[in-house]
Amino acid sequence: MGIKDIAVMAAINAENDRIAEGVRQTLAERGIYCINIIGSPGTGKTSCLINIIQGIKDIGCYVIEGDIQSDIDTQKLAGLGIGALQINTGGACRLDATLISNTLERLPPIKSGVLFIENIGNLICPAGSDIGENLKLLIINVTEGADKPYKYPAAFVNAGAILLNKIDLLPYVDFDMEYFMHGVRILNAEAPVFQVSAMNGTGFSGVCEWLKTKISTTEA
Amino acid sequence: MGIKDIAVMAAINAENDRIAEGVRQTLAERGIYCINIIGSPGTGKTSCLINIIQGIKDIGCYVIEGDIQSDIDTQKLAGLGIGALQINTGGACRLDATLISNTLERLPPIKSGVLFIENIGNLICPAGSDIGENLKLLIINVTEGADKPYKYPAAFVNAGAILLNKIDLLPYVDFDMEYFMHGVRILNAEAPVFQVSAMNGTGFSGVCEWLKTKISTTEA
Repeated sequence: MGIKDIAVMAAINAENDRIAEGVRQTLAERGIYCINIIGSPGTGKTSCLINIIQGIKDIGCYVIEGDIQSDIDTQKLAGLGIGALQINTGGACRLDATLISNTLERLPPIKSGVLFIENIGNLICPAGSDIGENLKLLIINVTEGADKPYKYPAAFVNAGAILLNKIDLLPYVDFDMEYFMHGVRILNAEAPVFQVSAMNGTGFSGVCEWLKTKISTTEA
Repeated sequence: MGIKDIAVMAAINAENDRIAEGVRQTLAERGIYCINIIGSPGTGKTSCLINIIQGIKDIGCYVIEGDIQSDIDTQKLAGLGIGALQINTGGACRLDATLISNTLERLPPIKSGVLFIENIGNLICPAGSDIGENLKLLIINVTEGADKPYKYPAAFVNAGAILLNKIDLLPYVDFDMEYFMHGVRILNAEAPVFQVSAMNGTGFSGVCEWLKTKISTTEA
């Protein structure tokens, strides 16, 4: 890329951040807390989301599903009685603030609650991008290997909370928990790390308690 | 993005394809067959590569390791006596032809063999991008779920061969093989799909036999 190209990209990023701030304000005025869910393809973003929504039933939940193509996850949620708005990016490797801003107009006009946005399955592109969220929720899983913080640092640096999913598979994979946690803490001293299994529900009561406190503190 | 931004991106892509063609020609002149390895973070790209290199020992192998950050995989290969050149993209979500072209100058001046390029862990950005390879080798694994062809079609459309890794975990995960293969064949009628386990070596003899034939046919 030449200097001219870099200038174009910088302008695009600045515009994104301006629109993201508008999304955040619009949602705040409606009393909606926004969670941006980030993780690799197949790491369990939708399955974790289902566990969380079932664990915070007393809070109104809205979902925006981001995908390159298909509405498989939206259908999965619909099967459980959870309504979701679908965004297909066609090929783009992350959601951006403009896509979210345009989609907000389609959100039901209910006040207060939580908006979950499931980002594109990707540990890189969405990591540094603001879409108007209050919290980036990073989902990673034990089959991906313990070296992920060292290889994909931005996703960990920017996470407000981390779910380590698929711990039911720990007996069958080579995952060094100490090495993983060391890597996480080099990058991020504060984000809580929850060990969970979306398949059998392990660990989600702790996640939901933490989220409820986080949401109520932000609203106060 | 405005029309001007799209024009800039189109120019960048055209320039990439021109350089990729140069890489392919340079490698062909040296009798080197080039394999671009694509897959999600933690799907087992390096572990599969190790199994393949050990299975085609009679062919000279060169490796370029692409990562956002770190040289963990290059060190892993070095521990097995396999030399590799490291590329760190800093934050870019894929390797591009310019990075490969510049790295070729550092390749040992040996004639003939196979150059494996392990791309950035990402199922989207590298899928449609030409870096001068003869074959895109897609690695996917059973813990990611059977819906991946439907959600990330470009990676499957462009694959010359597909490894379905971690089949040792099949008894512990919910993976619908028929649904997966149906999705693959909608997108790609020809690419062979090999069920493998990089952890215990299952399936790699078939992969290596196929690769050897492919390489010798291309050289002829």
